[in-house]
Amino acid sequence: MAEFSLSDLETIIRERAHSGDPDSWTAKLFARGIDKAAQKLGEEAVETVIAAVGGDRQALVSESADLIYHWLVVLGVAGVPLADVLTELERRTGRSGIAEKASRQDRG
Amino acid sequence: MAEFSLSDLETIIRERAHSGDPDSWTAKLFARGIDKAAQKLGEEAVETVIAAVGGDRQALVSESADLIYHWLVVLGVAGVPLADVLTELERRTGRSGIAEKASRQDRG
Amino acid sequence: MAEFSLSDLETIIRERAHSGDPDSWTAKLFARGIDKAAQKLGEEAVETVIAAVGGDRQALVSESADLIYHWLVVLGVAGVPLADVLTELERRTGRSGIAEKASRQDRG
Amino acid sequence: MAEFSLSDLETIIRERAHSGDPDSWTAKLFARGIDKAAQKLGEEAVETVIAAVGGDRQALVSESADLIYHWLVVLGVAGVPLADVLTELERRTGRSGIAEKASRQDRG
Repeated sequence: MAEFSLSDLETIIRERAHSGDPDSWTAKLFARGIDKAAQKLGEEAVETVIAAVGGDRQALVSESADLIYHWLVVLGVAGVPLADVLTELERRTGRSGIAEKASRQDRG
Repeated sequence: MAEFSLSDLETIIRERAHSGDPDSWTAKLFARGIDKAAQKLGEEAVETVIAAVGGDRQALVSESADLIYHWLVVLGVAGVPLADVLTELERRTGRSGIAEKASRQDRG
Repeated sequence: MAEFSLSDLETIIRERAHSGDPDSWTAKLFARGIDKAAQKLGEEAVETVIAAVGGDRQALVSESADLIYHWLVVLGVAGVPLADVLTELERRTGRSGIAEKASRQDRG
Repeated sequence: MAEFSLSDLETIIRERAHSGDPDSWTAKLFARGIDKAAQKLGEEAVETVIAAVGGDRQALVSESADLIYHWLVVLGVAGVPLADVLTELERRTGRSGIAEKASRQDRG
């Protein structure tokens, strides 16, 4: 069974952003623009930092979810595909997803 | 072909954290503990915010990669699996990955 | 005429913190404790960064006022006197307030 | 004896900013511009938050000094006088420095 992924969430955010749904928080954030979206990202990062330092695992999960959601909103408002960031992360690690899977099999 | 995913990166980070490699930045961060890892997360969030507000797409990709890497380090040091955050995100969106894929086919 | 100073604001915050006034935002922040006060400090810092980068001088003044107020609340909740920070700043600059005034006359 | 104040520090920062001293951190920050100065402000805010939440009073004093210094650098690079922020803070508290001093004598 396929796991829920950030790509799934990116798709959902894109749909809601342009849904015209007046009750959609995502649509509201897109309407308010990049400064507001970036502000929310920064605020959620602060809360994630506090949860991490405080050793509160449940809060860390919850604040991390807020952080990642608002980060994908920032990417969406800026018109940057999540795939561009994943490609950059892959480039930095110097290993493709394929190679990583092969090496895991190697280790048996 | 499978795309590089955050789960791949989580695996790589876990391997490097315990590699004992003296040149590994990841191993160093794990050795320094949660306060330092959280500080780096906060700093990268600030840089991501500045790149977003400044409209610099290339910087946004690069700083986002730093942000996500350091966020996964924080999760790793705290012993929180990425899957817990993905499950929380899925719960909030109210749609399973399966359902999302089905609905995409529907739109096909 | 004496200018309004951070020491004046520190005094006002201390009075309000223990006023028991149910409408006082300061009293509420003190009641909620250090994590919440620190979170507000972090959030205001993010807004100050965005105002600065965006070149919005009026927003920079307004967000700076929020930042400094919440920073003094953090100091107050932590029981750290503002004077300790001023002393540390003076030590780092390597010049006393007196010496600074003398040197300004010298340049007169 | 006059206490060291933020106004003293603002004066020192302004002098160093335009000193041409190649070893001056302040001059370097001014040369790099508002984005870099704002980034440093954001980073020091994160460290102040972590020190506060961790209950480390000595670190809170030290990180606060860094925060206030970099905040004054941001104001300086943006061309915003500290006095504008103090005036805004005074306006919000609804009390002049004079009135505050009178009320302190009253309580005497």
